[in-house]
Amino acid sequence: MSDQCKTCPSSAGCNSTPGNCGVEPEKSLLGALNDIQHVIVVMSGKGGVGKSSVTGLIATTLAKQGKKVGILDADITGPSQPKAFGLGKTAGLKATDYGIIPPETALGIKLMSINFFLPNEDDPVIWRGPLLAGAVKQFWEEVDWRDLDYMVVDLPPGTGDVPLTVMQSLPVSGIVIVSSPQDLAFMVVKKTIKMTQKMNIPILGLIENMSYAVCSHCHEKLEIFGKTQGAKVAADTDIDFLGGLPWDASFNALVDKGKIEEYESKEMKDVVGKLLERLS
Amino acid sequence: MSDQCKTCPSSAGCNSTPGNCGVEPEKSLLGALNDIQHVIVVMSGKGGVGKSSVTGLIATTLAKQGKKVGILDADITGPSQPKAFGLGKTAGLKATDYGIIPPETALGIKLMSINFFLPNEDDPVIWRGPLLAGAVKQFWEEVDWRDLDYMVVDLPPGTGDVPLTVMQSLPVSGIVIVSSPQDLAFMVVKKTIKMTQKMNIPILGLIENMSYAVCSHCHEKLEIFGKTQGAKVAADTDIDFLGGLPWDASFNALVDKGKIEEYESKEMKDVVGKLLERLS
Repeated sequence: MSDQCKTCPSSAGCNSTPGNCGVEPEKSLLGALNDIQHVIVVMSGKGGVGKSSVTGLIATTLAKQGKKVGILDADITGPSQPKAFGLGKTAGLKATDYGIIPPETALGIKLMSINFFLPNEDDPVIWRGPLLAGAVKQFWEEVDWRDLDYMVVDLPPGTGDVPLTVMQSLPVSGIVIVSSPQDLAFMVVKKTIKMTQKMNIPILGLIENMSYAVCSHCHEKLEIFGKTQGAKVAADTDIDFLGGLPWDASFNALVDKGKIEEYESKEMKDVVGKLLERLS
Repeated sequence: MSDQCKTCPSSAGCNSTPGNCGVEPEKSLLGALNDIQHVIVVMSGKGGVGKSSVTGLIATTLAKQGKKVGILDADITGPSQPKAFGLGKTAGLKATDYGIIPPETALGIKLMSINFFLPNEDDPVIWRGPLLAGAVKQFWEEVDWRDLDYMVVDLPPGTGDVPLTVMQSLPVSGIVIVSSPQDLAFMVVKKTIKMTQKMNIPILGLIENMSYAVCSHCHEKLEIFGKTQGAKVAADTDIDFLGGLPWDASFNALVDKGKIEEYESKEMKDVVGKLLERLS
């Protein structure tokens, strides 16, 4: 025990080399190698407008263009990315000193979701907000993402803990807002736009999902979710309209089979083109 | 000052009659006249499966049968009940000693929603979980509901703070689970079923919403959300199947106009019949 130790209240049980105490402990290596260029957050006020589908399609479209892409599934109580990409328990999780290694999809998209940590994919995560937000922060800080050109974040619906934490804790490049043609969905989406503006996060634009469907019998266009109004709402709220996506039964079938990456969407290519312009 | 007061640490600034101190303050009258027979909670793990529509339709169907009905809109960050029932800011809020008086719909359904408290219906509520849960508790405890035969609670999607608080704080008679035919929706719904079972709350049954749509051109049935599988999932998870509801563009149009009460649904009458049997 050195002289210094005699006056130290923590001397009992201390293992530091005398004289070395007070030195900062070694900085955690978790996430130390991460270098992520752009963080795109996909958001909607209302659930079921296809936010997760849009997240998966943006990531897939970027990956097909040769970009290095990650998906952070921040929807802790209703995660759907692993199933859409066909990554089940078999995906397995390993870790290095730099964090948990995210499982990769067929196209090499790195994916992190709470579902990888559950014994069964249908086990519920019954957590209060601070725990939910904590999990999302860990997905950002303690996952070994390494170099990524784009990280796409799938938020839960609403304006609660997780969206708030993501906007406060992640270096968000911009928000993509997803909506359906229903009036009601747009009212709730306007809440999202206002939240984003209050938090000073740039909005990349609005995507109207389920703009129309095509009848599998007579092949007529059906406006099943009401009249398309994305362009108008975008203009009214002074944000960019990125485009409308159709309701497509073949897309849903691919998602249910875990093969979202096999879907080709001309509309999404246009949307992503506009996104990249705004981010460059 | 009485002798008693001389030894009391709170004597300075105390207004009690000497000798009366230590007596419990008058119990708050808030909610004192409430007498609610059955609390039906409508839940889904995933958003956008039509939970709010089902809530509104259950309440409407019960009201048309002459029942006294209330709706507690517990979806604080994405409330949709006021718009569906055409109750805007003009609904106004008044209060008595017994609590806030809930606005009433055309059919006399008492409705409480965070939207009545916002300057604009599209203002966002950017709150963390404990605040969200607190608002829902107040809607239960501090609203002057009086006698109700049925209270229908519209939960936000997921298994976070608000569903947890409702299950812990309200005398829930049973849960109605809503799902769409998509595989993915069912995976997330199974989480809900497991949560409910963990919390020891009875499940009244499963409703499959958007079981099919009808083409407005050729009038063929379209399984736009995938093959119906409600009955199978209910059997697999050992809960009752209450029935399937079609996707109906005319219903959505009424909701957008605030006229949900004008919708007549034979399917919902059957569902409500089964619900009442289970609750009797």
